[in-house]
Amino acid sequence: MLRIHFDEITRTFESILLARGCPAVHAAKVAREVARNSLEGTYTHGVNRFGRLVRNIDQGLIDMAAVPTLGKAFGALENYDGNRGFGITNAWFAMGRAVELAAVYGIGCVAVRNTNHWMRAATYGYEACDLGMAGICFTNTMPNMPTWGAVDAHLGNNPLVMGFPYKNGHILVDMAMSQYSYGALELAMLEGEQMPTVAGFDAEGNLTTDPAAVHATKRVLPMGYWKGAALSFVLDIFAGSLSLGNTTSEIGKLPGGEYGLSQTFIAIDFSKVAPPDRVEEIIRTAVEDLLSSKSDGSSRPIVYAGQRLAAIKSRNEKEGIPVDERVWEDVLSLKSRSFQDFPR
Amino acid sequence: MLRIHFDEITRTFESILLARGCPAVHAAKVAREVARNSLEGTYTHGVNRFGRLVRNIDQGLIDMAAVPTLGKAFGALENYDGNRGFGITNAWFAMGRAVELAAVYGIGCVAVRNTNHWMRAATYGYEACDLGMAGICFTNTMPNMPTWGAVDAHLGNNPLVMGFPYKNGHILVDMAMSQYSYGALELAMLEGEQMPTVAGFDAEGNLTTDPAAVHATKRVLPMGYWKGAALSFVLDIFAGSLSLGNTTSEIGKLPGGEYGLSQTFIAIDFSKVAPPDRVEEIIRTAVEDLLSSKSDGSSRPIVYAGQRLAAIKSRNEKEGIPVDERVWEDVLSLKSRSFQDFPR
Repeated sequence: MLRIHFDEITRTFESILLARGCPAVHAAKVAREVARNSLEGTYTHGVNRFGRLVRNIDQGLIDMAAVPTLGKAFGALENYDGNRGFGITNAWFAMGRAVELAAVYGIGCVAVRNTNHWMRAATYGYEACDLGMAGICFTNTMPNMPTWGAVDAHLGNNPLVMGFPYKNGHILVDMAMSQYSYGALELAMLEGEQMPTVAGFDAEGNLTTDPAAVHATKRVLPMGYWKGAALSFVLDIFAGSLSLGNTTSEIGKLPGGEYGLSQTFIAIDFSKVAPPDRVEEIIRTAVEDLLSSKSDGSSRPIVYAGQRLAAIKSRNEKEGIPVDERVWEDVLSLKSRSFQDFPR
Repeated sequence: MLRIHFDEITRTFESILLARGCPAVHAAKVAREVARNSLEGTYTHGVNRFGRLVRNIDQGLIDMAAVPTLGKAFGALENYDGNRGFGITNAWFAMGRAVELAAVYGIGCVAVRNTNHWMRAATYGYEACDLGMAGICFTNTMPNMPTWGAVDAHLGNNPLVMGFPYKNGHILVDMAMSQYSYGALELAMLEGEQMPTVAGFDAEGNLTTDPAAVHATKRVLPMGYWKGAALSFVLDIFAGSLSLGNTTSEIGKLPGGEYGLSQTFIAIDFSKVAPPDRVEEIIRTAVEDLLSSKSDGSSRPIVYAGQRLAAIKSRNEKEGIPVDERVWEDVLSLKSRSFQDFPR
């Protein structure tokens, strides 16, 4: 495992994007955010995913120059066409706009259609939190999860983020609606391990912790069984309806990959009705109470949602970000090759 | 099992509340909503729960005459003190107010502190949907669920509701953060059944489907394991902070029961940016796609969240609402006795 510094990763990504004709402002932002995902410990959506992002550019799924255009606006509610631009720049714009609306109206809501994968969902919750506001956002995805009682995927794993600013590390949950991602299943398969809890159904229709069995059936488990299936569908309806965009079922019909997504961003400027110092005290008391929980003696750490980010980030800033050697070689090779040269 | 008509249940509840000095407008509303919960199939928060509601009145936990008073308001964001009034009337007011704000600003958010149990969470999502708006709401509760890795309860099961209007039956999810309620565990214990999926931890710290074992340890399982634990805490932080009210940890310190809750209500007037006929078509297409899922051959029905309400309601309207005879006897006895006559 290599340890590479954030700046080197960012510069490398940026040069690869610039060489493909990406506008400088988008190249800088996308490079920075993808590298930051690894810096802050979400390795699946950081350096490990950059190759796939570039493939989507080379396939023509992402229009690197596109910016969102306004659909309709009414007070604190707006929707936009993402014009198949970068998921990262579109989503960053949308949460930023929700924050602007919240500064004026107390709460703001922005929906975006026709956008691309936003990489780490948490990023846009942290964006709001870093600006001193509470943030909620969710996206739909291509169909990748069966609903409860079904064998074929008609739901997305539609991650949901809710974040609230806190001085000692924002309180933030970033949860996909599947209990485990395909990435997590694949990693466990490679390492010959079972999942810590049931991950989906095997070929006989039984719940199993065996990642290979679930990978074979594609019957990943919704988190909370029927609950995650229900929430996934409702998030899809919210995102598709507010943006007048695709729902998961429509995304599944698009040829050639995952694009044309719908997303929703809500920011709440709580400081307008709740003094931040009072709020800070409310949160501190709640955090201390949660962390005083008695351990069950297992290795499961008792933490609040979002607590571990700071320590991971601090270590990766000091020691460099852990990157698999082959992954980094692949990234470097993107300087001289295009995915258009290869079969998909 | 008796079958009692909605009107008879409502009149009975109303007379019991009026006899206790409840203002008529609150008696009518609370009676109607509690009866409606049974009518629409949420039996745990309908007739079966009315006795507990009356006990909370007789204990002085609920101020039957109280109405919410404004804390602070800024544009589309407001918070209120619920003044320990009925959870139902406070929550109904709050979602109604969020809807009013959304009609002006596109989105509205109302937080309420110092309120009581709102009975069925879905009610306030349906309130927004029936007014043609999308609704989101959540409440905190007393501590009743350990966080992931812990043995003692520092989290609430904090139900979350998201609903979107749909002509053929609103799309709505109403999910507590525990996989099963204590009510569901107790019912299974009475019937000598196992839970359909793991429900919590036994005394040895193993996941189990045995309701009695979980009831004994009080280690109910968060839905989605660590995910539900994380979301529960974030919902608590949102509700407590936006309302300047109690978080779950503070509620747990209050003597004499569950009260002083914090809740949040968001309404979105999507019609301002998305033509309702287009939205209706988006939802219809998504619903049809979901319902075309291939069954896994189990008895698990393939439905969308909220779909089953209409059929249950229609049957209960025609045939009367199923009510356990002893439960109904208990309700009738409340006409002539007070819980103040009994030890708590």
